[in-house]
Amino acid sequence: MSQLIPAVPVGRGQVIDAIRGGNQTSRVDLVKLLASNPATISTIVRELIVDGLVAETGRAPSTGGKPRVLLSLVPESRYAVGVSLDQSGISYVVANLDGAIIGRLRRPGAGDARPADVVERIGMELMSLVHRVGVDPGKLLGVGVVSPGPITGAQGMALTPPAMQAWRDYPLADALQDATGLRVLVENDASAAAVGEYWAGPAAASRCFAALYMGTGIGSGLVIDGRLHRGVSGNTGEIGHNCVDLSGPPCWCGAQGCLEVVAGPRAVVAAAVARGLTVPGVSVFDDFAAVARLAMKGDPVASELLAQSASSVAVAIQSLCNIMDPDLIVLTGPAFTTAGSIYLPIIQERLDTTCMARDCHHIEVSLSLNAAEAASIGGAALVLQSELVFRPASTPEVVPSNGALNRV
Amino acid sequence: MSQLIPAVPVGRGQVIDAIRGGNQTSRVDLVKLLASNPATISTIVRELIVDGLVAETGRAPSTGGKPRVLLSLVPESRYAVGVSLDQSGISYVVANLDGAIIGRLRRPGAGDARPADVVERIGMELMSLVHRVGVDPGKLLGVGVVSPGPITGAQGMALTPPAMQAWRDYPLADALQDATGLRVLVENDASAAAVGEYWAGPAAASRCFAALYMGTGIGSGLVIDGRLHRGVSGNTGEIGHNCVDLSGPPCWCGAQGCLEVVAGPRAVVAAAVARGLTVPGVSVFDDFAAVARLAMKGDPVASELLAQSASSVAVAIQSLCNIMDPDLIVLTGPAFTTAGSIYLPIIQERLDTTCMARDCHHIEVSLSLNAAEAASIGGAALVLQSELVFRPASTPEVVPSNGALNRV
Repeated sequence: MSQLIPAVPVGRGQVIDAIRGGNQTSRVDLVKLLASNPATISTIVRELIVDGLVAETGRAPSTGGKPRVLLSLVPESRYAVGVSLDQSGISYVVANLDGAIIGRLRRPGAGDARPADVVERIGMELMSLVHRVGVDPGKLLGVGVVSPGPITGAQGMALTPPAMQAWRDYPLADALQDATGLRVLVENDASAAAVGEYWAGPAAASRCFAALYMGTGIGSGLVIDGRLHRGVSGNTGEIGHNCVDLSGPPCWCGAQGCLEVVAGPRAVVAAAVARGLTVPGVSVFDDFAAVARLAMKGDPVASELLAQSASSVAVAIQSLCNIMDPDLIVLTGPAFTTAGSIYLPIIQERLDTTCMARDCHHIEVSLSLNAAEAASIGGAALVLQSELVFRPASTPEVVPSNGALNRV
Repeated sequence: MSQLIPAVPVGRGQVIDAIRGGNQTSRVDLVKLLASNPATISTIVRELIVDGLVAETGRAPSTGGKPRVLLSLVPESRYAVGVSLDQSGISYVVANLDGAIIGRLRRPGAGDARPADVVERIGMELMSLVHRVGVDPGKLLGVGVVSPGPITGAQGMALTPPAMQAWRDYPLADALQDATGLRVLVENDASAAAVGEYWAGPAAASRCFAALYMGTGIGSGLVIDGRLHRGVSGNTGEIGHNCVDLSGPPCWCGAQGCLEVVAGPRAVVAAAVARGLTVPGVSVFDDFAAVARLAMKGDPVASELLAQSASSVAVAIQSLCNIMDPDLIVLTGPAFTTAGSIYLPIIQERLDTTCMARDCHHIEVSLSLNAAEAASIGGAALVLQSELVFRPASTPEVVPSNGALNRV
């Protein structure tokens, strides 16, 4: 048997993706871009026009032969919802078929509530957002729900932080599907954030980049040649559980001295409280933001704690860079909305002075333009790029991601 | 502009690769496998038959229509040489077009000799091996030369270990091309070793694996979905320079507490000598092997030093696994020919107990079947899979690798 991977037949999702990513795309462009044949492309485009997802929007200037008919998506024909589920906060976005974000909502996190109750709340909050932005629920393609921690198959979390133990092996996809009647796709939040950055940020120009995601915990997502790197089980980029101190404290994951337990937002907040700083005490997100604001105002203890955290994060990111050889690190996730400007120069300095490839190329560290919502934007993007959601629904079905990305 | 990467036209190298990887491959199979069209495949196959690289070797049993003509490579029609250049040893292999290794040679390393002298010696040793195995030099496609350290462009090493400082920015490819009259491809040794493992070992079944390479230093190579991961500059897998001890000794690379300076073969040998063990003192390869043999015989100091080294290596490999989510780690390179059985259980145990995805899937640690020669086999494989070497040579040209792998 050959080891080469045979070409996969072109589907509707890929054609939609190519039109979304293109500028004045014609059927001829699609044939070239997707390495397909004119008959297949022609059939799929006809179906998409009949279904109202694609429209003919003019003709290209003639270059001698028959002028090409240009195709565009009909942005309001379909929508996707992205949900980022974290202990400290839940965020929602609604995106149209073109990838534009037309609605956003931030709500309290899962806390220690029962998963079934949280899922019921998510269903209601999601539908209320859809209603508020005036989207016909019949036009929803599905929900991309993203959460911390390793995921098993397409179902939900396997190894969960202590505060989310109740979610271990909880059938998140099935439950949310039952609650909403929509197709549901699950993904790790850091991987989804990388997709969100690729989708809506300057990261799209990079051939290899990592999104460093700080929510309640720390993770990262990797995009290589326009594809989300998913490894053999979808559990990639888990740098929050890389060891930065062999004699460090035990981590909830079972290892010792992990980046997250040494330097994650929860550790920073705990150290701040131990040293007498006042925090709201509502959620890790809010408390960490409070410490960051104190540091910006010049509080020496807060500044010291964040600098220590940033140094540890920088060590882990340098390791990631030595392994992956990226040219861009995007700092994203709720924790960086306030603390990003403190972490950025410390990480940049370590990469500039210690990365193995530093004499070959620069690695840019940049702050996300959508740090609070990158993960939920990624959830919605994964739905819009999933092949299955563009097929007629028969039985309820969990939608796997194919990992290939594109951007608006 | 769309961000999708357009399909590249099928070339001779890809067709040869597909036939090599296939079992009873026909033109129809090639069309499907390479997502090409019958006319292109037919033209390329005809040229390859005329040039003597491919032969028609029978017909498949009819499945109703006209029985398909089966194609095979002519193994003795072309050859490639792989050279692994290290301070402590230089190894050579000659592979035929089918990928079979038909000749091997191990010679002393570069030591502190002048690069020009070493390249001259490599040219002579290489040609003497080619002569010894009875290969017509006119049938040589090229040389894949692999070496430690970051590489700049297609030329040679950029950041070099202290013992190889003279090689910094030395135009290795050009010099070896001048010395041999052959096309020359350069690659990092650890990346080449990953290719060698994929080419000739059980790693070919893995969708995502890493080769951990120990020569004089420590590196790794990553293969994802059958492609060598090359990052943005070809400097991937540099785990030898990941920090395992923030307060550790300074490393030649400019950082502190790097895996290599804490736990690499050179560090183990230095510690062994400091603690009174006797080593030959010829090269790091030989000295490290001597320490490993002492450990196998039960020497407590040697055993302790290797266990310490293995623990540090295990920490770095766990980080790599958390980032990449592979299912296989292959221990390869000269240092593992003797010490592999000591390192393997220690690394396996750490991965089994601390990797983030441990509840989702097993990560197997295995010992290479070609530890001493994986890098040079990879060098030859990269030549056999390079598109350019199958085109008529006009001006001397450095051959970039396309990163796509296949196996015999």
